[in-house]
Amino acid sequence: MLIVGERINTSRKAVNEAVEKRDAAYIRDDIQKQANAGANYIDVNAGSRIGSEMEDLSWLIEVAEAAVEVPLSLDSPDPKVLMALVGRVKKKPLINSTTAEKDRFEAMKPVFQAREADVVALCMDERGIPSAVDQALENAHFLVKNLNQLGVPVQRIHLDPMIQPVSVNNKNGLLALETIRRIHREFPGVKTVCGLSNVSYGLPKRFLVNRIFMVLAIGAGLSGAIVDPLDQKMMTNILVADTLAGRDDYCMKYLKANRAGKLIE
Amino acid sequence: MLIVGERINTSRKAVNEAVEKRDAAYIRDDIQKQANAGANYIDVNAGSRIGSEMEDLSWLIEVAEAAVEVPLSLDSPDPKVLMALVGRVKKKPLINSTTAEKDRFEAMKPVFQAREADVVALCMDERGIPSAVDQALENAHFLVKNLNQLGVPVQRIHLDPMIQPVSVNNKNGLLALETIRRIHREFPGVKTVCGLSNVSYGLPKRFLVNRIFMVLAIGAGLSGAIVDPLDQKMMTNILVADTLAGRDDYCMKYLKANRAGKLIE
Repeated sequence: MLIVGERINTSRKAVNEAVEKRDAAYIRDDIQKQANAGANYIDVNAGSRIGSEMEDLSWLIEVAEAAVEVPLSLDSPDPKVLMALVGRVKKKPLINSTTAEKDRFEAMKPVFQAREADVVALCMDERGIPSAVDQALENAHFLVKNLNQLGVPVQRIHLDPMIQPVSVNNKNGLLALETIRRIHREFPGVKTVCGLSNVSYGLPKRFLVNRIFMVLAIGAGLSGAIVDPLDQKMMTNILVADTLAGRDDYCMKYLKANRAGKLIE
Repeated sequence: MLIVGERINTSRKAVNEAVEKRDAAYIRDDIQKQANAGANYIDVNAGSRIGSEMEDLSWLIEVAEAAVEVPLSLDSPDPKVLMALVGRVKKKPLINSTTAEKDRFEAMKPVFQAREADVVALCMDERGIPSAVDQALENAHFLVKNLNQLGVPVQRIHLDPMIQPVSVNNKNGLLALETIRRIHREFPGVKTVCGLSNVSYGLPKRFLVNRIFMVLAIGAGLSGAIVDPLDQKMMTNILVADTLAGRDDYCMKYLKANRAGKLIE
């Protein structure tokens, strides 16, 4: 399972303050903890800092690259910011993200052309988050075809099925799970990744809902997750689900995590 | 999700002692707790008490029926015991279990003919637990066909996919999950049920593995589970997975469990 550590996001109060004060020690410490907890990418996002996003994200990249060897996930709502910074990161990044919205995809093209990178692509278009599996798959088809044409091979594409809250419609979980299953069946080699925040919207004990949804998504074939790697119960669920989904030869990762005291019931 | 409470089994030391001493208060208390925790059936099993199983199970039935309104799951390895007792229980029971082993199935026929009941049927035959989905489905086909012929409708058949330890082969989890999926696709109306003890055999923190496997199984369509209803984390996982699998209208069960303090992270 590919883990994208999501903590360095200025929508979180403590991170926003650290960016504001240029508190490199705070950012460095958090990033190192995420890397130690098993993050394969560190996501950096200053999208909430309207007006100063470019320089703030640039500073975050500098601090992050000095802190760890783990590559970065460049996360911005603004294609211009991504374009300006994608050439600056040392290791091949994950670009987070594009969608199948025609204008946004068009604006993102130079970014994909500027540098070889992995890409998070959200299965949504101008109509919003799909309310049917076929609609999500239509967006997946657009994204895979157009990214391929720009030289991004299937192995570097991470499709996010997009999910709406189960509190709004009790079929929304099934919709995302079936989308993940269909993506892996119809686009061999393509990867999937799941952002979780929406699934539990409107419910109490959201962390619990997110953690169990992650297990169901792994059962559907999910290959990556954008999560907080310091959430030990989430990481335990991912590891155990991976083992049960046949992805852990001789249960070695499970046994190693147990010896390290990392399995939290 | 149909919950079969598995605690009253003489292979558990405390239960064996209570049966030995005819300690009705202990058994009654445990059964009432299981019913309060949401068990839809109370399983009673004295199979470890060789020589006295018949009278021990008969006593357990009497105590259980005086304790709760919840119907019983009559659990014995011995068709003669089941045949002698199936007519004695007041409420329509669950008969646990038969297999596709020809001799065992033949010996169980009078039990199914003696009384209308739900049936747990294990997808295994003389060759043992299936090592391929097709083999499990072959057994499912035998069981459904032959039970139907004896007058047991699909709605009363609960097929157990049977699972072998992931510590022995890392594909064993996938095998059981795919079997559950195929059963629901190929036998509309048939139910599934999962005994968990095998999946985690040979691993540390077995409870954790069992609980996560249950979530994956619900994702595959599982409709019932033989579990300890007093394991609050297991019950929480079942409830949250049910909600995410689209089985909880308006998230009412989730919200009610949360208000009752029953959601344990």
